Amino acid sequence: MQISVRQIAAQLGAPFEGNGDILVSGVAGIRDATAGQLTFVANAKYFAEIKNTLASVLIVPEDAEIAFRPIIRSQQPKLAFIKTMELFMLPKPKVVPKLDATAVIGKRVMLGNAVYLGAFVVIEDGASIGDNTTIYPGSYIGRRSKIGTNTIIYPNVTIWEEVSIGNRVTIHSGTVIGCDGFGYAEANGIQYKIPQLGTVVIEDDIEIGANVTIDRATMGKTWIKKGTKIDNLVHIAHNVIIGEHAIIVAQVGISGSVEVGDRVTLAGQSGVAGHIKIGSGTTVAARSGVTKSIPSNICVSGFPARIHRQEQKTQAYVQRLPKLVKRIQELEKKVNEFEAFVSRKEQKNKKSAKNTKKKLK
Amino acid sequence: MQISVRQIAAQLGAPFEGNGDILVSGVAGIRDATAGQLTFVANAKYFAEIKNTLASVLIVPEDAEIAFRPIIRSQQPKLAFIKTMELFMLPKPKVVPKLDATAVIGKRVMLGNAVYLGAFVVIEDGASIGDNTTIYPGSYIGRRSKIGTNTIIYPNVTIWEEVSIGNRVTIHSGTVIGCDGFGYAEANGIQYKIPQLGTVVIEDDIEIGANVTIDRATMGKTWIKKGTKIDNLVHIAHNVIIGEHAIIVAQVGISGSVEVGDRVTLAGQSGVAGHIKIGSGTTVAARSGVTKSIPSNICVSGFPARIHRQEQKTQAYVQRLPKLVKRIQELEKKVNEFEAFVSRKEQKNKKSAKNTKKKLK
Amino acid sequence: MQISVRQIAAQLGAPFEGNGDILVSGVAGIRDATAGQLTFVANAKYFAEIKNTLASVLIVPEDAEIAFRPIIRSQQPKLAFIKTMELFMLPKPKVVPKLDATAVIGKRVMLGNAVYLGAFVVIEDGASIGDNTTIYPGSYIGRRSKIGTNTIIYPNVTIWEEVSIGNRVTIHSGTVIGCDGFGYAEANGIQYKIPQLGTVVIEDDIEIGANVTIDRATMGKTWIKKGTKIDNLVHIAHNVIIGEHAIIVAQVGISGSVEVGDRVTLAGQSGVAGHIKIGSGTTVAARSGVTKSIPSNICVSGFPARIHRQEQKTQAYVQRLPKLVKRIQELEKKVNEFEAFVSRKEQKNKKSAKNTKKKLK
Repeated sequence: MQISVRQIAAQLGAPFEGNGDILVSGVAGIRDATAGQLTFVANAKYFAEIKNTLASVLIVPEDAEIAFRPIIRSQQPKLAFIKTMELFMLPKPKVVPKLDATAVIGKRVMLGNAVYLGAFVVIEDGASIGDNTTIYPGSYIGRRSKIGTNTIIYPNVTIWEEVSIGNRVTIHSGTVIGCDGFGYAEANGIQYKIPQLGTVVIEDDIEIGANVTIDRATMGKTWIKKGTKIDNLVHIAHNVIIGEHAIIVAQVGISGSVEVGDRVTLAGQSGVAGHIKIGSGTTVAARSGVTKSIPSNICVSGFPARIHRQEQKTQAYVQRLPKLVKRIQELEKKVNEFEAFVSRKEQKNKKSAKNTKKKLK
Repeated sequence: MQISVRQIAAQLGAPFEGNGDILVSGVAGIRDATAGQLTFVANAKYFAEIKNTLASVLIVPEDAEIAFRPIIRSQQPKLAFIKTMELFMLPKPKVVPKLDATAVIGKRVMLGNAVYLGAFVVIEDGASIGDNTTIYPGSYIGRRSKIGTNTIIYPNVTIWEEVSIGNRVTIHSGTVIGCDGFGYAEANGIQYKIPQLGTVVIEDDIEIGANVTIDRATMGKTWIKKGTKIDNLVHIAHNVIIGEHAIIVAQVGISGSVEVGDRVTLAGQSGVAGHIKIGSGTTVAARSGVTKSIPSNICVSGFPARIHRQEQKTQAYVQRLPKLVKRIQELEKKVNEFEAFVSRKEQKNKKSAKNTKKKLK
Repeated sequence: MQISVRQIAAQLGAPFEGNGDILVSGVAGIRDATAGQLTFVANAKYFAEIKNTLASVLIVPEDAEIAFRPIIRSQQPKLAFIKTMELFMLPKPKVVPKLDATAVIGKRVMLGNAVYLGAFVVIEDGASIGDNTTIYPGSYIGRRSKIGTNTIIYPNVTIWEEVSIGNRVTIHSGTVIGCDGFGYAEANGIQYKIPQLGTVVIEDDIEIGANVTIDRATMGKTWIKKGTKIDNLVHIAHNVIIGEHAIIVAQVGISGSVEVGDRVTLAGQSGVAGHIKIGSGTTVAARSGVTKSIPSNICVSGFPARIHRQEQKTQAYVQRLPKLVKRIQELEKKVNEFEAFVSRKEQKNKKSAKNTKKKLK
């Protein structure tokens, strides 16, 4: 699928400069883009990247002075980019709704219109599946779980009992939602299981990666709010609440009863200790470990996580340790010399004091 | 399900104070508990938490002076709590034993009484499944594997060949047990696979979370001993031995041939290097990396992991580095002044020595 | 299965010393080996390990002076070890090729000779499966995906659409290949999905562990080159390229568009930030976080990852911080004494200067 620059500009209602006949085969970020692709720069901060991009076409701010050609000019380059992206997001060969003959459907199951159930799908008693929802082969929907409309569940996903999944949700393969939280009470050296009686609520417009695990609550609900995106191999423990439009990157682990605000980013391989709140708009850098509640709209890094700038300074000091030690050695050398000097002086003084005494005698 | 304080106290054979008609809907830890729930405090260390708990009812030590009402008094509050918990762990709607018509059962398979095999379960040749064991849809039991009695295997679990699983074991969805260990021998830049001919033994009363991987041994067995609990997304490599009643929290990775003692806790996202022993009763803090064998009954943290208190001190020093550098700068300033002072003194001395010489001449 | 030392030596065309009738039950590395097993030492560096090994037989360099018996002598002990290993890798009870009656095979699927499709396997339209390839129960092959010859896919694997898998590839259970990359563009607080239109190419002679996730490219391909081995629970993001014969250990995470060279080792739980190149032959130590491109044939560790030796020194300095602080305190004490000394001196000088003035008057 290819669209000319001229056609894209027309769809965006935006002016272009350069050869409008150049064909675009897709879109990507300025660093990822390859020949034939379109990318964008929304502000001057990224203009320096232009000379390195392999993209063939650029969406740029209306008044930017940029030598690259062809360009499309827009008041809101990022939004224009997203609209272009949607031009290429043309319907994947649509799955034709059907209930595969091998799918096992329990009692009192409610199926919406135009539902696709693939081979070997199991829908347990009392579950409900909304209109236009697609459930690929080998996936399992537990008793009384509710799946919304226009939702896609890839192959080999497990949704355990009484879980609620919203509309326009995408869940990738191997993911498990609603497994028991990890709760035990120890007595006499034995671990007694704390019953995990709660559930999981996944709101609308959420995407969940592959091989993710989301535990059900001990009581109440583990709760992912609308618009949040979760990458592969993420662990979300019992009773966690994640706000709207958050970004949880691959291999993040979130302990029990953590509350993550709206639009928070937890970067890759970071972890959050239990019973902590992370304020809205905050970013946790990759591989950080958050051990205390942190306020909104800041950036933290390190373990234990601290304000990113402060942590960076501290880590720079760590790198300077060898030089610091040399400075200390230098000081010690000099101080030893002073000691020698002072002791000479004082001996001399004693001597002269003695002499004075003698003289006085 | 709701039980009155009066009824709970009666079941525990314990006295209560306050309104016995208050209804309890469940139990939880003191920090997790919400209105309507019961929690406990076993010793004075946690009394400070009482003022913050949302719980409606408290189990407390027999002689504790606590203003909270209602309370139930017990000589062993934690055990009383666990007994209360069990009151609420009323039978989930019992799975009715059956062998689903779609389950594929191999040759020479031994099935106990009251076994449940869900849809699309595969039991390969020579495997055996104990009495009252439940295997949910889509799970796979390999050739000659043995599953004990009263065990629960959730959907989409894979147990590969010749693995042994005990009684009262719970395995959550997506978990893989008995896959090959990661062993290669390199020669001339090529990796040759070392055959993984051993197996995995999972003893009784073990719970294993979702999307866990437990590799089979190269020779002999990877071995998890009774009572151990393993959280989601944990990796256990070939030939690892884990003792009894251990706690392995989410996303932990344990390298090949590691030996973990009884009642060890490996907290979340920690890792253990190969061929290491961790003594019984030891705790490895979250995100630690253990690189050397460590003794029993200690707590380690950091990477490389060290005695926790020592590591905390070292990390506190790291945080004080900016101040240390200022102290060094201050020292350098002063030392420079001394240098100037000393050199003035010494020049003066030379001068006066010269003068003295002159005079002597 | 047991083979005598005499027989092994004969197969290797190599001389042995000691009792040739001793029976060997398998092979293992020098630290892992147990009684009855054979191991090897290829060079003097490892001779010290000999006294601790439990192995019963050793392959050693031709001219090594080693007291252990029995030994087999070889010019290339490692290659001899690998050949011995292969003696024990006798055919697992061969899976008899068949297409299980429950397998669902789409339209225009091309199946090679001697293919095994287990129960509940799904092969979607347009996919192709090469000769002698084994696909175990519950695995899913997406539309137009191509699987090579002599490849083994364990139970409950998901290969999504248009993915290409080579010859002699092994993929363990629960692994997901070809799921969407984690790409969004944010505008007005909402995350818009960047369509993931590319694919994944897995070349020949690759092994991939259990519960791994390999994302498809945004455009183009995520690309794993021949001979590479990947352990359990590894995450490989969109557009990553991994070179030939690399070793990626458990729980590693590789961010988008990273390029990993040939024969690179990424040790357990390490992570790599996006858009980075790791030169061929380089080793990244366990739990490291690589944040910048690094050259070939070096070893890095720490976070951010630095040359391993330098990082070790820096970390040694961190451990010495408490002692450094004591040295600074000692310096401060002495410097305070000098200050007192100097101020005494200077007061004295002032006094004597005054006296001199007086005298002069």
